[in-house]
Amino acid sequence: MTTKWGDKEMLKAIKNPSDKRYEITIDCPELTFLGEQEQPDFGHVNVLMVPSDKVIELKSFKKYIFSFRNSFLSYERFINTMYDHIMEVYSPLELSIEVEFRPRGGISSKLRIDSQKRHKGKLHE
Amino acid sequence: MTTKWGDKEMLKAIKNPSDKRYEITIDCPELTFLGEQEQPDFGHVNVLMVPSDKVIELKSFKKYIFSFRNSFLSYERFINTMYDHIMEVYSPLELSIEVEFRPRGGISSKLRIDSQKRHKGKLHE
Amino acid sequence: MTTKWGDKEMLKAIKNPSDKRYEITIDCPELTFLGEQEQPDFGHVNVLMVPSDKVIELKSFKKYIFSFRNSFLSYERFINTMYDHIMEVYSPLELSIEVEFRPRGGISSKLRIDSQKRHKGKLHE
Amino acid sequence: MTTKWGDKEMLKAIKNPSDKRYEITIDCPELTFLGEQEQPDFGHVNVLMVPSDKVIELKSFKKYIFSFRNSFLSYERFINTMYDHIMEVYSPLELSIEVEFRPRGGISSKLRIDSQKRHKGKLHE
Amino acid sequence: MTTKWGDKEMLKAIKNPSDKRYEITIDCPELTFLGEQEQPDFGHVNVLMVPSDKVIELKSFKKYIFSFRNSFLSYERFINTMYDHIMEVYSPLELSIEVEFRPRGGISSKLRIDSQKRHKGKLHE
Amino acid sequence: MTTKWGDKEMLKAIKNPSDKRYEITIDCPELTFLGEQEQPDFGHVNVLMVPSDKVIELKSFKKYIFSFRNSFLSYERFINTMYDHIMEVYSPLELSIEVEFRPRGGISSKLRIDSQKRHKGKLHE
Amino acid sequence: MTTKWGDKEMLKAIKNPSDKRYEITIDCPELTFLGEQEQPDFGHVNVLMVPSDKVIELKSFKKYIFSFRNSFLSYERFINTMYDHIMEVYSPLELSIEVEFRPRGGISSKLRIDSQKRHKGKLHE
Amino acid sequence: MTTKWGDKEMLKAIKNPSDKRYEITIDCPELTFLGEQEQPDFGHVNVLMVPSDKVIELKSFKKYIFSFRNSFLSYERFINTMYDHIMEVYSPLELSIEVEFRPRGGISSKLRIDSQKRHKGKLHE
Amino acid sequence: MTTKWGDKEMLKAIKNPSDKRYEITIDCPELTFLGEQEQPDFGHVNVLMVPSDKVIELKSFKKYIFSFRNSFLSYERFINTMYDHIMEVYSPLELSIEVEFRPRGGISSKLRIDSQKRHKGKLHE
Amino acid sequence: MTTKWGDKEMLKAIKNPSDKRYEITIDCPELTFLGEQEQPDFGHVNVLMVPSDKVIELKSFKKYIFSFRNSFLSYERFINTMYDHIMEVYSPLELSIEVEFRPRGGISSKLRIDSQKRHKGKLHE
Repeated sequence: MTTKWGDKEMLKAIKNPSDKRYEITIDCPELTFLGEQEQPDFGHVNVLMVPSDKVIELKSFKKYIFSFRNSFLSYERFINTMYDHIMEVYSPLELSIEVEFRPRGGISSKLRIDSQKRHKGKLHE
Repeated sequence: MTTKWGDKEMLKAIKNPSDKRYEITIDCPELTFLGEQEQPDFGHVNVLMVPSDKVIELKSFKKYIFSFRNSFLSYERFINTMYDHIMEVYSPLELSIEVEFRPRGGISSKLRIDSQKRHKGKLHE
Repeated sequence: MTTKWGDKEMLKAIKNPSDKRYEITIDCPELTFLGEQEQPDFGHVNVLMVPSDKVIELKSFKKYIFSFRNSFLSYERFINTMYDHIMEVYSPLELSIEVEFRPRGGISSKLRIDSQKRHKGKLHE
Repeated sequence: MTTKWGDKEMLKAIKNPSDKRYEITIDCPELTFLGEQEQPDFGHVNVLMVPSDKVIELKSFKKYIFSFRNSFLSYERFINTMYDHIMEVYSPLELSIEVEFRPRGGISSKLRIDSQKRHKGKLHE
Repeated sequence: MTTKWGDKEMLKAIKNPSDKRYEITIDCPELTFLGEQEQPDFGHVNVLMVPSDKVIELKSFKKYIFSFRNSFLSYERFINTMYDHIMEVYSPLELSIEVEFRPRGGISSKLRIDSQKRHKGKLHE
Repeated sequence: MTTKWGDKEMLKAIKNPSDKRYEITIDCPELTFLGEQEQPDFGHVNVLMVPSDKVIELKSFKKYIFSFRNSFLSYERFINTMYDHIMEVYSPLELSIEVEFRPRGGISSKLRIDSQKRHKGKLHE
Repeated sequence: MTTKWGDKEMLKAIKNPSDKRYEITIDCPELTFLGEQEQPDFGHVNVLMVPSDKVIELKSFKKYIFSFRNSFLSYERFINTMYDHIMEVYSPLELSIEVEFRPRGGISSKLRIDSQKRHKGKLHE
Repeated sequence: MTTKWGDKEMLKAIKNPSDKRYEITIDCPELTFLGEQEQPDFGHVNVLMVPSDKVIELKSFKKYIFSFRNSFLSYERFINTMYDHIMEVYSPLELSIEVEFRPRGGISSKLRIDSQKRHKGKLHE
Repeated sequence: MTTKWGDKEMLKAIKNPSDKRYEITIDCPELTFLGEQEQPDFGHVNVLMVPSDKVIELKSFKKYIFSFRNSFLSYERFINTMYDHIMEVYSPLELSIEVEFRPRGGISSKLRIDSQKRHKGKLHE
Repeated sequence: MTTKWGDKEMLKAIKNPSDKRYEITIDCPELTFLGEQEQPDFGHVNVLMVPSDKVIELKSFKKYIFSFRNSFLSYERFINTMYDHIMEVYSPLELSIEVEFRPRGGISSKLRIDSQKRHKGKLHE
């Protein structure tokens, strides 16, 4: 098993056929990685972006999600890593990611990053 | 089979019986075309418009949707093409189109174009 | 059968017992009239209003809806006619009407008029 | 039977344990009173308030709802009466009440009063 | 049995792995404490926060919820206490808590505190 | 108020227009009567019958349900009384009644009588 | 307006392409006729049959349903008439019809005829 | 805290007002007890019985459920204990109990005892 | 376009890894073919089988469904053809197929063939 | 990665506290293993058993499910293997397993084994 947190090299791009503004939402209920006690966690990822020049090639996105399967991550690490990877590879005009995790100990968690709020009230400058 | 992306000539108009502002939403869960590997894709189209002088004749809209049946398209190409066709034929005051595609490889996609956001932060000028 | 589009004389009013602002929503899933090929159409009407001096007497509203049963109308004609009738009879401070029609040829339609957007970007002045 | 419209004396208060702003929503699907033809009407009441010094004692609210059981009221009278009673007894910072009535003659009604819109575009001054 | 209202010492923190803004929502349908007549109440807690330097350690949150099990509280006391505890321990940039209680006497209650409205129209200054 | 348990004289019959076997189901979510502590109970009644010579006149059924409004009954008394009344007035070939009551103290109850099981394993002979 | 109860001449047949046993279910939520006080009733018809030599031509079934639009019928008359018409025209091996009517006076009705129970415990012999 | 498994003395009976066969279902979503690691478990209990001479007094049932609150039990022990208690106190003609527990470690459990299957293929004779 | 009704040669088999009895259900909401007026029909196929020596290779099943895309068929022809093809290629111990078609003219159809009823009351011997 | 199909040694038993007949259902929506092209498959497992002397220890069941995470299996192999393992370890009086897999290529599969049908119409004797 590995502690590498996904592999952004896997994310392939397709040229955006339009130069006008529109939104693409990608929804994947098949996320799984290993939590910190080597126990699997299961989540549902939803990515909304306004593409600039590139759109996500879906098969590569699937492999990227698959690349976390045997990594050890916290929920917080996962979503922040994925956000950075998508930003770096596709440079979207807008990006928001939401991940909903299945309950553990009677408690379920949902995390969300939104590029439009990302810089509001920065934590550390 | 054909690679032509729909046929805007098929879209017929009816004179708008009102000269006041109102919305029309058309919902069609029966979209299908051929994806890039000659495999069929299935989607659910939703069109919301504020009509100017013309409203959509529904039978012609149905034939227009049908005209994509044996074409090869990407999701992005489909929605941008359809948006342009409706804009050109009906010149609505507002237009938004949303298409939700059935899952492929565990991932489902939804695309959306909205005339009111179309020109905000233009990609290429 | 008749081509008359409803009969606003049927709409009776009750004095509004309050002189303060509140909303009334009336929901009727039992609308039917004849479409343009003498085939029946079925719809679900929802009327939201902020009453001024008068509120709608519900039995009269039911008869008004019933009065369209054997008329020939397009969807667009129906909702614009109904909007004008309610405006004339009750002079509400705000009014919005939404009608959702059952699918025809795999396509369902929803129409909506809202008094607060009615005069925004007027079509003809 | 009686024509008295509820009894605000029944509404008891509890001292608000906090002096900070928060919302309380109370939902009661068990409202019934007599309509104008001595036929029972059934509704679902939802009250949202931002309390000032007092919060609603729930058992007294239940008895208050019960006190309408054999009164003759219109929908409009009911919601305006209840709004005034709650305002007088608890002086909340904000108050909104929504009542959804079960269908009569195929038509269902929903009424709503919101303190934040109450004085906008006053009917009579 | 005890009248202590939870124990904030139980709430443990994990260092936030990111210094950018994102939201965490924690949802726990397994809240129970004793109401004022020694009868158990049951609720569903939902906590949304924008973390600053610390995020909630989930096992400690579960134990914290568990610590109310044999305490006597009103609904209003519970949510205000929990809000203060989370604010003190984690100092989030934003915090909102919603608790929905199961029906008692045909009436269900929902309470909500939102840090962004907390200081609007202060009750006592 | 009264302790009389409904009034079977209210139940009117219509001649069954068919002499063949078929089922009629009548569903009324608007049952209310007074429980034993003078507190109102609310239920949803469902009656399924195979009619013999008579079918239920619906307006009279509505009045019959209404006649329980201010009576004091237990759940068990209500359903056994109603079953006997319908059997006596309409002599159906088959009859089953189900009543689902809204929760009290966190507990909801459903009662059911079925003519086809009525005599199986009789309690007292 | 007319008191004729539908017109079985409208029901057209198509030759069954198979000589083996299978089921066809036809579901139409768009039934409307006039009740006994000239008020419209609305229902949802569901027909299940095991065809013998003939299957139902769907357009003719639609016209048949439409032919009741201005007739005066009771619920009981409607379902028994329709059952007889379908039996006479198509001679199915099995037939069951269920019609669910929208609520009137807070009460909704569902009627059902099943060929396999039709002769069990005959009413009149 | 205690290891006593409920207290059947709490279960009170009411005389069954009928000597005919009918069913009573009692549904309580508010079960909680302590699992074997002193962690609370939460379940939803459903009891269906055909009463003989006695029916369950609901307030006593609520207290009985409450009496498990601080006991240590396994799921299997809980349902078998409760079944025996109800059998002993009320001697119903038929009894089935189903308990659905909230998920633990991603796994949810449901247990069910049915008097009519209880003696089929006995385990130990 | 073609009038050939699917191509059973496309259906590939995998050796069943078990020689014991179990069920496999395959569900495909993406069926489309051309109805008799060259208009597309859309359906949802559900196949349940108890396999003998062979199980269905899913990719070949997908291609088989795809092979109907430009064929002209009636609903009845489709389901009977598919049933025969699956029987011939896989010789299952049991087979049932259900196809639910999207509404046309306000009417939706569902067809069903079940091997266990197939020979009961044969039509033609 | 491994081709071993789960590890029945992981399945631990607890002594059944009752010697009477009852059912236990275990539901786990978090199954994942690798399909034959090294692509992950995701399923929802439901196990119903009538225990004899042993019941399933839930933590061990979770680990057992986890043990398939990096194995290569077909759907058919998975369910037959799991059925055999549970039979061998717990010797239940009855056992049924159902697994529902997420869609692949627009097609979803569900498999089911039931001990009570297992020997009916044996495939190979």
